[in-house]
Amino acid sequence: MEHNGTAALGWAARDTSGHLSPFSFTRRVQQEDDVTIKVLYCGICHTDLHIIKNEWGNAMYPVVPGHEIVGVVTGVGAGVTKFKAGDTGYENYCPTMVITSNGTDYGGATTQGGFSDVMVVRQDYVVRVPASLPPDGAAPLLCAGVTVYSPMVEYGLNGPGKHLGVVGLGGLGHLGVKFGKAFGMKVTVISSSPAKRGEALGRLGADAFLSSRDGEGMAAAAATMDGIIDTVSAGHPLVPLLSLLKPKGQMVVVGAPAAPLQLPAIAIIDGGKRVAGSGGGSVAECQAMLDFAGEHGIAADVEAMLDFAGEHGIAADVEVVAMDAVNAALGRLERNDVRYRFVVDVAGTMHAAAAAAASS
Amino acid sequence: MEHNGTAALGWAARDTSGHLSPFSFTRRVQQEDDVTIKVLYCGICHTDLHIIKNEWGNAMYPVVPGHEIVGVVTGVGAGVTKFKAGDTGYENYCPTMVITSNGTDYGGATTQGGFSDVMVVRQDYVVRVPASLPPDGAAPLLCAGVTVYSPMVEYGLNGPGKHLGVVGLGGLGHLGVKFGKAFGMKVTVISSSPAKRGEALGRLGADAFLSSRDGEGMAAAAATMDGIIDTVSAGHPLVPLLSLLKPKGQMVVVGAPAAPLQLPAIAIIDGGKRVAGSGGGSVAECQAMLDFAGEHGIAADVEAMLDFAGEHGIAADVEVVAMDAVNAALGRLERNDVRYRFVVDVAGTMHAAAAAAASS
Repeated sequence: MEHNGTAALGWAARDTSGHLSPFSFTRRVQQEDDVTIKVLYCGICHTDLHIIKNEWGNAMYPVVPGHEIVGVVTGVGAGVTKFKAGDTGYENYCPTMVITSNGTDYGGATTQGGFSDVMVVRQDYVVRVPASLPPDGAAPLLCAGVTVYSPMVEYGLNGPGKHLGVVGLGGLGHLGVKFGKAFGMKVTVISSSPAKRGEALGRLGADAFLSSRDGEGMAAAAATMDGIIDTVSAGHPLVPLLSLLKPKGQMVVVGAPAAPLQLPAIAIIDGGKRVAGSGGGSVAECQAMLDFAGEHGIAADVEAMLDFAGEHGIAADVEVVAMDAVNAALGRLERNDVRYRFVVDVAGTMHAAAAAAASS
Repeated sequence: MEHNGTAALGWAARDTSGHLSPFSFTRRVQQEDDVTIKVLYCGICHTDLHIIKNEWGNAMYPVVPGHEIVGVVTGVGAGVTKFKAGDTGYENYCPTMVITSNGTDYGGATTQGGFSDVMVVRQDYVVRVPASLPPDGAAPLLCAGVTVYSPMVEYGLNGPGKHLGVVGLGGLGHLGVKFGKAFGMKVTVISSSPAKRGEALGRLGADAFLSSRDGEGMAAAAATMDGIIDTVSAGHPLVPLLSLLKPKGQMVVVGAPAAPLQLPAIAIIDGGKRVAGSGGGSVAECQAMLDFAGEHGIAADVEAMLDFAGEHGIAADVEVVAMDAVNAALGRLERNDVRYRFVVDVAGTMHAAAAAAASS
């Protein structure tokens, strides 16, 4: 550990094209309560797309995206008691002011994300991945997973016998189905793509599928759901979804369409319904979510579980890509062409990709 | 009690002018579990305006409005154990399918409201008014009161030391302030009318007043409130109000603007906030609210309490009007010219007004 910080290699965007390419930078000097982590895998979240293309107007180029990070602890400060070198860990900055990427670090520098070989993180924001989870499939749990898990637990949408609607079957939605089934709930997937019916009812194990364009089907399901997790980040009407809720039912919005949601007051006054927003989760929720995922396998997930070398557990269905395929993956993500989450094999491919890029 | 039901006199609207005039009709035959009530006072709610002018497109003319009804039990069916003749009671149909006015009765007839001399009500929907409450000031508690009380209790906005925002200082809002203070909370009134500051801080006893058009004041109050009760039924922006909430704060919408609320998802995802709708309350909540009101006086309300003949209690600030002044009162209500609720003195004025109307 040098006084000048840790040399790091990452993949950064330089401008609004969002194109990622090798970028050398320096991590902050490991402080007394910091953990240094060798990054193994990093998931690709829609937020990364927004940031690298400056769609939220706050990009601090050059920016290394990535916040769904699984790695191995390689060093700890003198004050670190929670981890020791060799432990498996990851960070979640969501609930803090210092966000993982495109934020401002304690010392004033711009934070750089997990599309890089090494991270330096305060121990309080590092959580433990159970050994039963595959590190690649676990990475998306750290943002997509906790984003659906946290409100489900907080708002009581985790009880056996309850009926959960999951709107949208993408990175967040498919994990909503998995957690819902693991909680013992009846889970109905609601999607504008009828083509997703097979996968929803098949390998993901949902109990029912509703096409949001099927007026009769939607009407037949009116007032049957205790809660809905709405993961869709494209504009869509809220009222038909609210009509699916029982009185006192709750809708949780975790996707953020650009235009304001249109919410007629009467649609929530009738039936005393609630619309909650939820983003990420606390560190404690992240740890509880990982522990829960590590303990719970579900029957319908047998195929996915077999991929996990026989281990049981809730993990994301992922497409693992090499670092030099990250731009193509981002392009596919923009077209929603992914089942259900891309994860970059950082440790296995980044240095080779950087070397190839340098020599081309 | 005749086989043909009870003859009743009321004040009904015949068309979309909403003009009320005397109307003779028949109440249903008192059933075994019915209570017959002589109406003493009936509050005027904005809903009455919507119904008599058919603004919701569902008016069943002729329609007798009125659902904030306080009266005296004059007869009970053989199966009635909850009340006996001489008790003081009122009905609240809000949570049931049989609404008090402009609804469909058990037998299929149109229900007629409390701007009439007599009601016949199933005992389950009659609650008891504590003796410490004045019958005129109690009437608006039965809709306006329970509408703010119910979500405050349900969503934990009833704890000492918490900070409650009350948006709009009308029939609902002024009761929100009174309940909030009785719960031991810090209460801030938020209004687009700076002229209401004096009354809010003075006799109503609010702790603070915010003009919603005062950008600096609103910014200074950002993230300070545990909850907000939004009583405004005119269109207004939600985002500045949501910014007043602490993380995990809750806004309860009890006013229903005609146009959909504009709710940017990010305004509730940041901070994990919730927007709940709430309408009326259950019979049990009505009774709990009345009991609470009967037990609680607040220091700032001394003047109002003195009006209650020395009795302590939370009651609405009312303007009591005679039945033949009801059309004028409705016109003033439409212009929000009331502090804070009109109540018709049904028992004291209706028959004389009908006689005068017949002879004119």
